Amino acid sequence: MSVIGKPVLYSYWRSSCSWRVRIALNLKEIPYDIKPVSLVKNGGEQHSNEFREVNPMEQVPALHIDNHTLIESFNILLYLEETRPHRPLMPADPIKRARVREICEVISSGIQPLQNLIVLIYVGEERKKEWAQHWITRGFTAVEKLLSSSAGKYCVGDDITLADCCLVPQIFNARRFHVDLRPFPTILRIDRHLENHPAFTAAHPNNQPDCPPEATK
Amino acid sequence: MSVIGKPVLYSYWRSSCSWRVRIALNLKEIPYDIKPVSLVKNGGEQHSNEFREVNPMEQVPALHIDNHTLIESFNILLYLEETRPHRPLMPADPIKRARVREICEVISSGIQPLQNLIVLIYVGEERKKEWAQHWITRGFTAVEKLLSSSAGKYCVGDDITLADCCLVPQIFNARRFHVDLRPFPTILRIDRHLENHPAFTAAHPNNQPDCPPEATK
Repeated sequence: MSVIGKPVLYSYWRSSCSWRVRIALNLKEIPYDIKPVSLVKNGGEQHSNEFREVNPMEQVPALHIDNHTLIESFNILLYLEETRPHRPLMPADPIKRARVREICEVISSGIQPLQNLIVLIYVGEERKKEWAQHWITRGFTAVEKLLSSSAGKYCVGDDITLADCCLVPQIFNARRFHVDLRPFPTILRIDRHLENHPAFTAAHPNNQPDCPPEATK
Repeated sequence: MSVIGKPVLYSYWRSSCSWRVRIALNLKEIPYDIKPVSLVKNGGEQHSNEFREVNPMEQVPALHIDNHTLIESFNILLYLEETRPHRPLMPADPIKRARVREICEVISSGIQPLQNLIVLIYVGEERKKEWAQHWITRGFTAVEKLLSSSAGKYCVGDDITLADCCLVPQIFNARRFHVDLRPFPTILRIDRHLENHPAFTAAHPNNQPDCPPEATK
């Protein structure tokens, strides 16, 4: 049972958009409960009448916080940043903030929507691997170019930002679809810097309560 | 020739993402020059080596402003709001701000990326109309539901926000693809309130310098 006022994240272990929010909550040290929504069981619990009331887009994540339910992961990240500015995940400088959002948006609008589960089902089994590889490679080509001028240790400079919250889950998806990542050395370098960070590790699909045991073997 | 310091918008007349930014610039009364980028001439000027240096995603819009070039339309809208807060296009209340961004993100991540030119080319001539209709209808179903609790005269309350900047161009696209809009009375009502607004009219595709004369007939 949730403590009153403790945020509740509707999440699926392997959803990259849920993962973005899990990372940000962890980085900001905001305690939260997870309410798992299986995207595969019974044709997808996200399509149930009950969940459609939570999120009319019928997808995760959704975050119940401050007595309201918020949808859309990038929106949620920005809400957390606006209302919990401690441990900031955005720079103060407006141009650097724009650089962070550019990377977030290339991933959240330019890559993820084209390779998410519902679209791949619609694309069809035969074409889905090639389809996902095509759009991830296109997007990562742009991200790598953006990083060539923005990156320090992380996506924008030497502090972790919302861009890193979006990038790491997308790299996981790229590997799932066997995308050749060798053309993206900066992306890979940032991934190496973050793979053992406690906030990122705790948010990893394999460490979620709804991760099936066979997935971690 | 641009006045020094005057923003330059890389834009295509019919691009809904360029249109979002044109509306915001107009609403905020920020003078700007347009540099047209034809998405169709010679296979698309956005794919030229020259334009790839402007935007590695090879798409419009891009905005040269404050001595920097910004990409990704939602990012640009948020940058304008952060740096030009007069004539605000975001509410002050954090939850209402989240409601604005939810609508923006459903459109900019949940609809537009699936029906943009480059994806429809990849989908193929045979399937593209049905494909575009499917994803626009899915997204508008969610937007209509969100509007049922957020809308006043406009998407969120009675003031024009960034959500309206995103919605109006998407309605135009829905009509282009002959989407049945009758199930979306709130969307249609907001569209009617805005169709003769000078900032929206000036940003309309038919009123762009690169609009071919035959398109307005």
